[in-house]
Amino acid sequence: MLINASRLKNNLQELSTFSEPGKGITRRCFTDVYDKGLNYVRNLMENAGLTTRLDSVGNLIGRKKGKYNNRSAIVIGSHIDTVPNGGMFDGTVGVLGAIEVIRTLTESQYTNNYPLEVISFYNEESSAPALTGGTFGSRVMMGVININSFLLENVKKINLSEQDLQSAYRDPNTIKNYLELHIEQGRILYDQKIQIGIVTGIVGKKRYLATVKGKANHAGTTPMYDRDDALLKALPLIKGVNDIVREIGTNLVGTVGRIDVKPGVQNVIPGEVEITIEFRDLEFGTIDKAVKKMKDLINKIGDTELIEVEAKNSSLMDKNVQLQIEKACISNSFTHKYMPSGAGHDARELAKKVPSGLIFIPSIEGISHASDEMTDFDDINNGTTVLLDTVKLLDNE
Amino acid sequence: MLINASRLKNNLQELSTFSEPGKGITRRCFTDVYDKGLNYVRNLMENAGLTTRLDSVGNLIGRKKGKYNNRSAIVIGSHIDTVPNGGMFDGTVGVLGAIEVIRTLTESQYTNNYPLEVISFYNEESSAPALTGGTFGSRVMMGVININSFLLENVKKINLSEQDLQSAYRDPNTIKNYLELHIEQGRILYDQKIQIGIVTGIVGKKRYLATVKGKANHAGTTPMYDRDDALLKALPLIKGVNDIVREIGTNLVGTVGRIDVKPGVQNVIPGEVEITIEFRDLEFGTIDKAVKKMKDLINKIGDTELIEVEAKNSSLMDKNVQLQIEKACISNSFTHKYMPSGAGHDARELAKKVPSGLIFIPSIEGISHASDEMTDFDDINNGTTVLLDTVKLLDNE
Repeated sequence: MLINASRLKNNLQELSTFSEPGKGITRRCFTDVYDKGLNYVRNLMENAGLTTRLDSVGNLIGRKKGKYNNRSAIVIGSHIDTVPNGGMFDGTVGVLGAIEVIRTLTESQYTNNYPLEVISFYNEESSAPALTGGTFGSRVMMGVININSFLLENVKKINLSEQDLQSAYRDPNTIKNYLELHIEQGRILYDQKIQIGIVTGIVGKKRYLATVKGKANHAGTTPMYDRDDALLKALPLIKGVNDIVREIGTNLVGTVGRIDVKPGVQNVIPGEVEITIEFRDLEFGTIDKAVKKMKDLINKIGDTELIEVEAKNSSLMDKNVQLQIEKACISNSFTHKYMPSGAGHDARELAKKVPSGLIFIPSIEGISHASDEMTDFDDINNGTTVLLDTVKLLDNE
Repeated sequence: MLINASRLKNNLQELSTFSEPGKGITRRCFTDVYDKGLNYVRNLMENAGLTTRLDSVGNLIGRKKGKYNNRSAIVIGSHIDTVPNGGMFDGTVGVLGAIEVIRTLTESQYTNNYPLEVISFYNEESSAPALTGGTFGSRVMMGVININSFLLENVKKINLSEQDLQSAYRDPNTIKNYLELHIEQGRILYDQKIQIGIVTGIVGKKRYLATVKGKANHAGTTPMYDRDDALLKALPLIKGVNDIVREIGTNLVGTVGRIDVKPGVQNVIPGEVEITIEFRDLEFGTIDKAVKKMKDLINKIGDTELIEVEAKNSSLMDKNVQLQIEKACISNSFTHKYMPSGAGHDARELAKKVPSGLIFIPSIEGISHASDEMTDFDDINNGTTVLLDTVKLLDNE
């Protein structure tokens, strides 16, 4: 059973034309091009024999009945919204690959035991003009979103009510498995020349804002011995975050990505420095180890306020689903490796309630969320083939 | 011969009422409050017996004839414009102190040999809405401003033409000496509890913009071993600037005041870091020594572009004038010390062409260019007394 590579490529190229002008692809939720792009996908679904509907928050769901139609469904999904000036592969490969899987099964007159569904989730990139956070549609569907007044005020901007959020919730028991095909958005597969990544889990993260305080003063009239330079004081912390992470090793990563010096003018000694710190790992214990060392360091440095901004648990993919993906790789002779995902995906939310799997294919140079995001079409075909074969394996359980 | 302390204090307080609303004093050139404030000063000058005129760029000049009126003049001056939300002492103490000197001389029926002038220079703080740079009025008067198309386009915004700039030039030979009384804007006098600073010169400076290049990448998906973090690479340079300066010692100061990380978001590894670097010292050779060491360091770090943004020579005060100021201190039993100035003043421009002197009085806690800028009125009276006595000493040369 072979997928139709040229049809899939054609679909990807056609969908990429639904973009705002400018570099790369810009297809943000709540815009005209998004609606038109989604309509294009909906037509593909209908033509593939899926019955489609939009749920109350905008998730597009296409369903094909199963031989045992009262069973829970095997769901394949991803998203088609993009970051501004993003690429044509992030998300879309998963949605269009899923549709290609359905078409291939149908054309091969395969009778699916379980109902099959393809979902294009709404607002995965937090691309809508509302502070909902990412993976919005999948979080609403799985009931893992915190519905508070802040969220409700924000979703009002995209014409959604509390009722809409509640109606889009779906009983996780109606889903047997969730599968997602996605570009890696990192360079591990690309560097190691491996065709398929079998994701073990999506890393958890902790984010902090550290404010190091000194004393702003005139850079010309304040002698060196009389300075309390907040930037100089912050240097060991910035370096320390990296040293701590490298020392702990494993897959832990840690980054200082933003630094704000106040007042931030060339002729004034920095009086205050704000830096963002984040740690990510599949093991929350490893993150906590790094956080402890960072806090020790901050105590040594002094004059520093630390605020925890975000803490997200890691989300583990299902062991059995991982095994089925591996079987599909082996039967196709694809090189493959088990790996964590450093980035979040809809699969993170589904995996919290449903046995899920996430399949990675290489990103050239690891570039993503940028106009030069690129994935080889051969890799897209490999990934879609693994997706197809995994669906069949799961369908025969 | 005693100055009238309460009258001077009263003048300072009245002038401070000419301010835009908000914290501290905001009296920027080319605003209504500036014009009204300058008019207040002009009235004080007229009442002190000075004949006043505005030159073609807005410098206010008050003149009292001398016994030998064809001689060059002894000029005392400073400025009354402020930075936004600045204080009531920076500049104004020098202008109102100078007027108090004239009043005291006149009331004591002192006959001045040389003509005496008080000048309130225009736009010392670069407070006008035009990119002229600071000490604008004094640079124009001394002919040490670079009249190019950039400047001409800018001064057009404040209704000045090339002809205006040329008309305000004054032959330096028409000035015997220039004297300025100013708050220190640093904390050396305050910390050392010294009443008067005799400024030896205004430090020169060199300013640089260094751009350190790395590679921006996803903070979650890029393993530590595969990172080229521009911020981490910039740390030794930031630290190095300070280490180099402390190592060289002397009065050299060096500061990294601004740092821009690109893209500057918490979940992206810094791809580029821009930092400002400046060095200041009275000895240009010392600055150059630091610059050489910095360049060696940058070569070691690599991937860094360095642009020289500004180079300003130091400006030395006249040795004889310094000596006359010291005599005035001694005859009044004021504690005093010779010191460089880290900040620029109108005296910097005058000193390039005319034997000049600059008298400092303490700034409480060294604070200036801020709403809590403060100087003790006793210190203002001491400074004005030294100014008075120095004028008499120079008038009798």
